[in-house]
Amino acid sequence: MTRLPVVLLSDFGWDDPYVGQVKGVLQRLSPGVPMIDLCHELPPFAVRAGSWLIERTWHHFPKRAVWLCVVDPGVGGARRALAGRVGGVRFVGPDNGLLSPFLSQPGVRVVEIAQAGAPGRTFHGRDLFAPVAACLAGGEKVHRLGKRVGNPVLERERGWVRQGSGWQAEVVWIDRYGNLITGLPVDRLQGRTVVGNPGGRQVGTFQDLPVGESGLLVGSFGTVEVVVNQGSAAKRFGVAVGDWVTVLPGDGGG
Amino acid sequence: MTRLPVVLLSDFGWDDPYVGQVKGVLQRLSPGVPMIDLCHELPPFAVRAGSWLIERTWHHFPKRAVWLCVVDPGVGGARRALAGRVGGVRFVGPDNGLLSPFLSQPGVRVVEIAQAGAPGRTFHGRDLFAPVAACLAGGEKVHRLGKRVGNPVLERERGWVRQGSGWQAEVVWIDRYGNLITGLPVDRLQGRTVVGNPGGRQVGTFQDLPVGESGLLVGSFGTVEVVVNQGSAAKRFGVAVGDWVTVLPGDGGG
Amino acid sequence: MTRLPVVLLSDFGWDDPYVGQVKGVLQRLSPGVPMIDLCHELPPFAVRAGSWLIERTWHHFPKRAVWLCVVDPGVGGARRALAGRVGGVRFVGPDNGLLSPFLSQPGVRVVEIAQAGAPGRTFHGRDLFAPVAACLAGGEKVHRLGKRVGNPVLERERGWVRQGSGWQAEVVWIDRYGNLITGLPVDRLQGRTVVGNPGGRQVGTFQDLPVGESGLLVGSFGTVEVVVNQGSAAKRFGVAVGDWVTVLPGDGGG
Repeated sequence: MTRLPVVLLSDFGWDDPYVGQVKGVLQRLSPGVPMIDLCHELPPFAVRAGSWLIERTWHHFPKRAVWLCVVDPGVGGARRALAGRVGGVRFVGPDNGLLSPFLSQPGVRVVEIAQAGAPGRTFHGRDLFAPVAACLAGGEKVHRLGKRVGNPVLERERGWVRQGSGWQAEVVWIDRYGNLITGLPVDRLQGRTVVGNPGGRQVGTFQDLPVGESGLLVGSFGTVEVVVNQGSAAKRFGVAVGDWVTVLPGDGGG
Repeated sequence: MTRLPVVLLSDFGWDDPYVGQVKGVLQRLSPGVPMIDLCHELPPFAVRAGSWLIERTWHHFPKRAVWLCVVDPGVGGARRALAGRVGGVRFVGPDNGLLSPFLSQPGVRVVEIAQAGAPGRTFHGRDLFAPVAACLAGGEKVHRLGKRVGNPVLERERGWVRQGSGWQAEVVWIDRYGNLITGLPVDRLQGRTVVGNPGGRQVGTFQDLPVGESGLLVGSFGTVEVVVNQGSAAKRFGVAVGDWVTVLPGDGGG
Repeated sequence: MTRLPVVLLSDFGWDDPYVGQVKGVLQRLSPGVPMIDLCHELPPFAVRAGSWLIERTWHHFPKRAVWLCVVDPGVGGARRALAGRVGGVRFVGPDNGLLSPFLSQPGVRVVEIAQAGAPGRTFHGRDLFAPVAACLAGGEKVHRLGKRVGNPVLERERGWVRQGSGWQAEVVWIDRYGNLITGLPVDRLQGRTVVGNPGGRQVGTFQDLPVGESGLLVGSFGTVEVVVNQGSAAKRFGVAVGDWVTVLPGDGGG
């Protein structure tokens, strides 16, 4: 039987034996199921960063897949557990806003998974969500997993605000190269080039900047990034995740 | 031909190109064999932590699998190399106590693998154990891999001692959230609730504690943990791996 | 259809969601393709370390495989994008010397991949190289991917120089155990034992040294390493990647 691949996203980290146990359960219940790790180094409890990451990357993954997403500070408590489907994408995880990019799609179907059956109350990634993901990977229908939910929790904050003719953009991720990845999506720029504080003028790619110089570009997440060619913008500007930067229309636009 | 999945556990770390080479050999000798990483960030040479981790997690993994476990400070020296089987589980690794959870099962069969054939003496994970694991994944019988061993090395230390009406419990793992995971198994509690120093009273899950408060719970390894809801117990109490904490019968027991 | 396994090597790191997106594209375009991570923690932009790592490890991997190698400070700029084949090995990546171990093999065929079709200019690992790797894994012929290139960039620096009757050896990698891995290959020793400064005399494996003592050995990369048995040579000697050490013929040679 063909099994859908399972995409894994969590804040479990690679150092601890948590991702491994989730995969053990997946392979025990769905032998040979393909597994794709999107990221496990979300900051602990960073529901919003996880939601943002799903939104900006899910179109790169197989159209038919099961998303097993766990950032779950409320594990074992009153928060609901969800499974759902939109198009070929199935998803499972806690009802805390993490799954918003799927939940806000037209035509999405969502059910609440019963938690009473889980053997433990502290590691639902392994004990509740992984078994459900294995079921979904094997072709189980979402509506058979629980009763329909009409009001799932949605993440409503966004990483940009309009300000005059420009934007304030939140730094939502800083990668190992030191690129400052903001939440301002390219479609907001409406084709205009922009300038940033910090950063400078917009370029097409790192190579359009002399080595060591900074600029703005539309990065691989489809949002504005502040970068230094072969250097760290984070170090250069002393900016951290959660800080906001200013983005204004540049010479080529406005 | 069906191939058994290989579960990998080591102290190789994710930063170095060691896990990758082990996997290269597995895929070269057993194309397409499923591989599940339990953990590769055991502290260097932490045989006992590895053994504990196997004991507390192996029942979550496929019942038919090959365990390739390498924490091997004695590589290339006099320590023996083992392969064995108990039920559907095959295992391979150094004879230094790491494999104790398998070796101490009733009905286990263990053989010594000849080391003369390995091309090197410093990386048996790649050069000796991975080829054996590939054989086992392909269905090879354990008794054909070497001659029977009757006295494998067993890890005899445990993470708890009885003390009066309570226990001293060793902190055997601290995870990225700062949870203090002790070696005291739930079956020792015999259904009684407990209190801890540090920690406080026992709860069912993190959510039974106000945010920022500490308590005890039976965690996902089936042992007592000292936790802070959405905070780090390790930072709160300044406790490190190897420290011991006191666990006493609580109000609901004794 | 059988799909060749894809070996992944990069400087993307495990913390960021870059490796995951590359894998998402591979699985989207080539469902179920086996993926083997050699290493993703190359230092940022460390083209030469990547090239060295390929050279010293590729014979351990499946003989028929696709190597997807990305250390790419020049992404989106003037540097060419390459795909090639030598024997059963296919490879794809930037034309900056990273692929030298393949490019310098007799009989290698190399083509330039058109970059115009890539949807972005900052993440060719996902947008250009992964789709090509998926094609190659599915059996696509290299010569159909672009026009032949006769002068690919080759890495010409090497990690050792002859000096008198001995060698200067560069420390090209320091692993998590603190072993100083040099670029001096065993074949240069011509069967002679050596002594090192720092390190001491050559031994066969860690266990030939008392715990805590240092020595030289031919390590798992086939090159000379300065090691301390169950200790860190890096800390002991204060040596960093890029430093050079002296290796001289020892008592058993010269």
